[in-house]
Amino acid sequence: MLYPVIQRLATLSTPLILVNFKTYIEGAGRKALELAESAEKANRETGVCIGLAPQFTDIARLAQTVSLPIFAQHIDPMGPGSFTGHILPEAVKDAGAVGTLINHSERRLKLADIEAAVTRAKGLGLVSVVCTNNASVSASAAALKPDFIAIEPPELIGTGIPVSKAKPEIVTDTVTLVRKVNPDVTILCGAGITRGDDVASALKLGTRGVLVASGIVKAKEPYKALLDFAKAAAV
Amino acid sequence: MLYPVIQRLATLSTPLILVNFKTYIEGAGRKALELAESAEKANRETGVCIGLAPQFTDIARLAQTVSLPIFAQHIDPMGPGSFTGHILPEAVKDAGAVGTLINHSERRLKLADIEAAVTRAKGLGLVSVVCTNNASVSASAAALKPDFIAIEPPELIGTGIPVSKAKPEIVTDTVTLVRKVNPDVTILCGAGITRGDDVASALKLGTRGVLVASGIVKAKEPYKALLDFAKAAAV
Amino acid sequence: MLYPVIQRLATLSTPLILVNFKTYIEGAGRKALELAESAEKANRETGVCIGLAPQFTDIARLAQTVSLPIFAQHIDPMGPGSFTGHILPEAVKDAGAVGTLINHSERRLKLADIEAAVTRAKGLGLVSVVCTNNASVSASAAALKPDFIAIEPPELIGTGIPVSKAKPEIVTDTVTLVRKVNPDVTILCGAGITRGDDVASALKLGTRGVLVASGIVKAKEPYKALLDFAKAAAV
Amino acid sequence: MLYPVIQRLATLSTPLILVNFKTYIEGAGRKALELAESAEKANRETGVCIGLAPQFTDIARLAQTVSLPIFAQHIDPMGPGSFTGHILPEAVKDAGAVGTLINHSERRLKLADIEAAVTRAKGLGLVSVVCTNNASVSASAAALKPDFIAIEPPELIGTGIPVSKAKPEIVTDTVTLVRKVNPDVTILCGAGITRGDDVASALKLGTRGVLVASGIVKAKEPYKALLDFAKAAAV
Repeated sequence: MLYPVIQRLATLSTPLILVNFKTYIEGAGRKALELAESAEKANRETGVCIGLAPQFTDIARLAQTVSLPIFAQHIDPMGPGSFTGHILPEAVKDAGAVGTLINHSERRLKLADIEAAVTRAKGLGLVSVVCTNNASVSASAAALKPDFIAIEPPELIGTGIPVSKAKPEIVTDTVTLVRKVNPDVTILCGAGITRGDDVASALKLGTRGVLVASGIVKAKEPYKALLDFAKAAAV
Repeated sequence: MLYPVIQRLATLSTPLILVNFKTYIEGAGRKALELAESAEKANRETGVCIGLAPQFTDIARLAQTVSLPIFAQHIDPMGPGSFTGHILPEAVKDAGAVGTLINHSERRLKLADIEAAVTRAKGLGLVSVVCTNNASVSASAAALKPDFIAIEPPELIGTGIPVSKAKPEIVTDTVTLVRKVNPDVTILCGAGITRGDDVASALKLGTRGVLVASGIVKAKEPYKALLDFAKAAAV
Repeated sequence: MLYPVIQRLATLSTPLILVNFKTYIEGAGRKALELAESAEKANRETGVCIGLAPQFTDIARLAQTVSLPIFAQHIDPMGPGSFTGHILPEAVKDAGAVGTLINHSERRLKLADIEAAVTRAKGLGLVSVVCTNNASVSASAAALKPDFIAIEPPELIGTGIPVSKAKPEIVTDTVTLVRKVNPDVTILCGAGITRGDDVASALKLGTRGVLVASGIVKAKEPYKALLDFAKAAAV
Repeated sequence: MLYPVIQRLATLSTPLILVNFKTYIEGAGRKALELAESAEKANRETGVCIGLAPQFTDIARLAQTVSLPIFAQHIDPMGPGSFTGHILPEAVKDAGAVGTLINHSERRLKLADIEAAVTRAKGLGLVSVVCTNNASVSASAAALKPDFIAIEPPELIGTGIPVSKAKPEIVTDTVTLVRKVNPDVTILCGAGITRGDDVASALKLGTRGVLVASGIVKAKEPYKALLDFAKAAAV
């Protein structure tokens, strides 16, 4: 760790509720901190693991404040060097992240770069969560040996229509195909998840958790929403 | 400001020495902090303005520690919303940046995105420094009304051969063409700058400072290098 | 010319109706040929110059069949070499194109690449038409000295609402700003143009023609639409 | 077929020598035609299948002239529509291509776009050849069910050092991993191949042919080089 600070202990476990703060203003700066504190409280009450993926500029602050696993939203696949404006994997680790999203549908990467990013994450001990858009792409991503795959049909993102209900076959097909290629990958699902009920459905379909954004970050009462999610996952 | 911290007062003035930390390991985390403290010392001794462009994850920490203007290395041109993994201008401002590089040769943008990024920066009160690769592109960038243009011939970046000596006509042509299109833009130059002497040359060619990276960040004694630069600029 | 074929004589003049075939199925293969023949007929009847920008695979065939100026929809800024899957400027010229669109809103380029593409086009004697999205970007593009600028507000493309009526100030601002930066650039406008009347409005605002796509290519009777456009331009 | 021409019958078989013309000037326009005729002659003498991947503007001409399978160097994953400057799969098929490279190291695609491009190719009856850079990426690509995978370590492309000799384990690892994920994919290898001997090595390692560029296109005597390759493959 390059940072001269004591970071809180963060344990990653499943079922996992992974909250993507995107570039929502409701999840930036001081609001990011408040959201993180709500998540920590929900975690303490339920024991369910809640991961947080804030903006890059907020990683250090959150990692120093709450005892939850912090994720970057993206890393670039390069090492230290002349890459102005890029996201160095070492930098997000030093700031306190324990893992990273890779290839989110809003930040898709070239195949060779996903492979390189997963390899770099592994080399640094960062947990990799590769996002995918359908079952076939999930199988493809699984061959790269990430820790997690998060299947999110882009057409459902932000709709409030949960993938686990609207297109359960995308989730079950993903589970089937990914297991064939690589049984060691843990599967999450996302898109349209807004209620604890959706989390329960996701787990029943064979996933080990959810990737959620607006359903928590833009909720009227984020703490209540988090508690609802965590309780559903705890069952 | 979303951050519940008192940030140091940072005044931006010219001549300006703007230090790009890139994704160098020598300018990340704790090292970024040490470098910033050296820069602050050199600034106090000479009165010459030294701007710092660290990685995104280090912006908040540096802004809270030193009284120098902090820059982001890049912003994305969008507003708050569903842009996972992108750099929200509001976020770098909230973290304490007073400005941002845009279109660095290692992070080139589409023309329409440069225009949108400059406009977004202006709307937020962030100082915009658009990087360019030749005189014609500099004139083009000047029409977008950024605060600064930093001309850096990419073939000289990291070579130790200063643009102000190897290709002074690129700098003087830039000064001439930019002034015709937009006399309000302040011009910096970069690439290959390693000594105070190079800074003096840059100012003589009509620029108001330099954009420098390895010449400072990878210097054996960054403080001495910074002092050498600042003294040359102070004359 | 590398092609062992006699190409028809194609003269470029203004007012210009430049038809972008996009990747419409109605403007591909045999349909592209039929459209080109309709355009040639409308040109013969009115004397108004009609340029055609078909898909890359159709350039040679159209250039060998009709006496109208053929444009590529895009070129990459590189020279001959190891650039698999890219559009070599020499190749579109050899196929018979006399010019090329650059930076269409559906194929936006980085600023440095626009500059390089314009320079490459100039070196090969290809007419360059740089597409822009607003007045500020138009001024920026004008500094790169292309032959033409085609201003097209992306939000109006394909709507049938003509820019010359919905946002005439974007066109007049473009004319004003571009002339200041570079009076030698010829200005076209596009987006939402479906009738001869829209062409007349465009010319009255100070442009020298239009860039049109669905208004012609997807018209029920393309020949009639072309004739309507050309007559309006001829007045 | 939209084109009103009689295309020559082209049968695709393995072992396959697939020649990538890149944007070499030695493989453009009239030169492309000469090269294609040399390839046809070598094919007639040996019976070995030689595929040709010229620039987009040359596809139609080559498809109408020689009885060899023609490939595009790239397709974009979209259907007909508003995609100015892109490569419509339908267009390359209409021009006479029987297949396409996808994700060449000089034209890398996002993972989701590779999947979509393979699916689009399949829907149109185009043979898909997905290029990859290492064994892990090859396994990932295999899950997308393309017809071919062409493994080419980018660091060897254009060096004249054949992958089959310099890094045979990349080829054998690819064969092993790809077969596990998808035994139906045919494997080619490429990079640095300049002699018939290199082709023989490639086949011995378990591939069914080679992807070659400068080794043929920039050869002093392309016909001799093609014959040398084809004879080695015929054994």
